[in-house]
Amino acid sequence: MEKVNLKTQNLKKEIIEIFKKFGLNKNHALISTNALINAELVGAYGHGLSRLRMYCERISKNLINPKPKIKIKKISNSISHIDADDAIGFVAADLAIKQAIKNAKKTGIGLVGVKNSGHYGLSGYYAEQAVKKNLITMIYTNAPPAIAPYGALKSLFGTNPICFGSPTGSKVPFILDTSISMINRGKIRFAAKNNKKIPEGVALNKFGKPTTNAKEALQGVQLPIAGFRGSGLAWMVDILSGVLTGGNHSGRVKDPFDDFSGPQNIGHLFITFKTNLFVKNYNLRIKDNIKKIKKLPKIKGVKEIVYPGQNKYKRFSVNFKKEIKLTKNTKKDLDFLKR
Amino acid sequence: MEKVNLKTQNLKKEIIEIFKKFGLNKNHALISTNALINAELVGAYGHGLSRLRMYCERISKNLINPKPKIKIKKISNSISHIDADDAIGFVAADLAIKQAIKNAKKTGIGLVGVKNSGHYGLSGYYAEQAVKKNLITMIYTNAPPAIAPYGALKSLFGTNPICFGSPTGSKVPFILDTSISMINRGKIRFAAKNNKKIPEGVALNKFGKPTTNAKEALQGVQLPIAGFRGSGLAWMVDILSGVLTGGNHSGRVKDPFDDFSGPQNIGHLFITFKTNLFVKNYNLRIKDNIKKIKKLPKIKGVKEIVYPGQNKYKRFSVNFKKEIKLTKNTKKDLDFLKR
Repeated sequence: MEKVNLKTQNLKKEIIEIFKKFGLNKNHALISTNALINAELVGAYGHGLSRLRMYCERISKNLINPKPKIKIKKISNSISHIDADDAIGFVAADLAIKQAIKNAKKTGIGLVGVKNSGHYGLSGYYAEQAVKKNLITMIYTNAPPAIAPYGALKSLFGTNPICFGSPTGSKVPFILDTSISMINRGKIRFAAKNNKKIPEGVALNKFGKPTTNAKEALQGVQLPIAGFRGSGLAWMVDILSGVLTGGNHSGRVKDPFDDFSGPQNIGHLFITFKTNLFVKNYNLRIKDNIKKIKKLPKIKGVKEIVYPGQNKYKRFSVNFKKEIKLTKNTKKDLDFLKR
Repeated sequence: MEKVNLKTQNLKKEIIEIFKKFGLNKNHALISTNALINAELVGAYGHGLSRLRMYCERISKNLINPKPKIKIKKISNSISHIDADDAIGFVAADLAIKQAIKNAKKTGIGLVGVKNSGHYGLSGYYAEQAVKKNLITMIYTNAPPAIAPYGALKSLFGTNPICFGSPTGSKVPFILDTSISMINRGKIRFAAKNNKKIPEGVALNKFGKPTTNAKEALQGVQLPIAGFRGSGLAWMVDILSGVLTGGNHSGRVKDPFDDFSGPQNIGHLFITFKTNLFVKNYNLRIKDNIKKIKKLPKIKGVKEIVYPGQNKYKRFSVNFKKEIKLTKNTKKDLDFLKR
C-alpha cells in the first residue's frame, strides 16, 4: 500500500500500534491492519474498523490468542490442515491461503482446512491473493448464527459466504464473494451502530415479523436467499468449513460481539487450483467469456454488465488515494483503544 | 436395481433396446437407461423419459456420438481430464465420477474436468456415487442459455446447477443439487409438453413480461435466484465447467431440443475428497450437525426440518417398487422409437 493516502498511512500506523499494544507481534498486527483497511477501501464497512474494538476486547479477554502457536500439518503435497490456536482470523486465513497457493503451485491443486480460527473479514480479500498468483480459488467459512434453516424458527447458520475467484486476463479479478443471507450481518451491525435502517425483506424481528430496524433484526432472524436453496447452500458451507475441518459448526460459532464465553473456533476451507490444468489458453478463454457477456443487450438504465469483483475493484481504486472517513463511533473506539 | 418393480424392469429393458438400436453399446445403453429411470423414480421428470426421444434424435443426427472414443488424460494422481468425444452425457459423467472417486481414494482429493460432453441429467445422481464411497463431492456443469446475466435482457447462462454431496453416517446422503434458476428448465419443458402452468415469478416471456405460460417462458428468460448473487453463481459455474475444462461457455452450449447445428460440447467439473482428511470422526460430527439442526423449533405447519437430498431419497424409496407412470407424450415417444 505504498501509494495510499498519507492520512490512511498514518491511520494504519495507529492501528498497528493498537494491535501491538494488545499483544500481537509486528507481523500479525500488520496482517490484521491491512485486512481492516482493505475492507474500508472496498466499502465493506461492516468488515472494517467498526470491528477493531471487538477484536481488541476479545484479545484482552483471552478469547483471541495474541501469541498463537499455529500448527500446519502436511496431509499431502496438496492438502494441509491448520490448527490456528485461536489466532485472530486474519492471521490464520493469511497463512492458510499462502499454504493453499504453495500447494497448488506444487501439485496443481491445494486444499487447506483450518480450525480454531476466528472471524477473518472478507473471503474475497484472500481470494485476491490466490488470483494474483494466477490460481482459481474457492473459499468457505462459517460464522455465528444469523439465518434460520428452512422450516426452523431459530437462527443457526451463519451468513456463510460462498467465495470464488478467478484470473480474468486483466488486472481486475473475478471475485464472487456472496453471503447466503439477503444482507451481510456486518451491514446490519453497521446500520445498528449508526442508527440507520436496513432494506425490507432481509430480516425478521425476534417475533418472526419483518423489520427494517437494524437493532431488531440483530435480535431476530436474517432471511436466506432463495428459501430452501439458500438454506441448503448455507448448510453446505457449514459442513465444508466446520464439520470437515474440526471447527465449530451447527450454530456453535460464538458471536464475536456479544458472546464472551469462549473462543469462536471458526473453521475455513480453502481450495486452489491452476488455471491451465485442462486448457493452455485459460486467460484468452475467460477474456472471451467476459467480452461475450458484456456485449449482451442491456436492461434500460444499465450502462454496463459487470462481473463480480468489478465494482469492488473500482471502489478500491477510487478510495485508495482518499482519506478514510471514520464514523463517530469508530473515532471513539480508536481514542479508547489508544489510551 | 434388483428389487425394482417388474413393470419398471420391463420398461428398463425396452429403453436399453432403444438406445442399442440407435447405436449405443450395451454398457452405454445401460448407464443411460439407469440415469433416466433414476430421474423418474426421484420425481425429476424433466430429466427423465421426457428426454429420451431428444437423445435418440441427436444420435441419429450425429450430434451425440454413439461410439465415442473417450480419452482420459492423467494430469496427476489427483487430476484427470476427459475428452468425451461427444458421448451421451450420462456415459461421460459416469466415467468422470468414477475417475474422480479413484483419484480421491488414491490421494485424498480428485479433480476431473470433462469437455465435449452433453446433458447428463441430475448432478445429484453422480454425487450419490461418490458419497456411497464415503467421499465429499462438488459437481458443476453448464447448460444451454436460460438465464439472463444480471443487467442483461437476453438469456446466456444455463440453469447451471451447484451440487454438493456428503456422507451423513446414515443411509440417506446429504445431496444438495440446486439450479441457479428459480425453477429447473426441465420442469418448464415438462409443463410445456403437458400444457401445465408454471409458478409466478420464475420466468419472463420474450418481451420481458412475467408469465406463467410454460411455452412462453421457454421463448423468454428464466429468472435467477437472488438477483446479482444468483447471476454471479451461474457465472462461476460457467467458468468452472466451461472455461476451465475446454467445454463450451458464455452461451455457446446448444439447446438439445431445438438446436441441431452441432454437438453441445458441455463441460463438467467433478471435485471429490475424503471426509477424514482433517478429522477422524467425520460421520459422528455430521450426525451431530444434522441432529442439532433437526431439533430446532419449527415454523407452524412444518413437521420436520429436512436436509437436502432427504425428500428425494424418500420419493425414490416409495417409487422404487411402484410402476412408473408414463405421460401420454412419453408413451408416444416410446412407440415411435421402438418402430
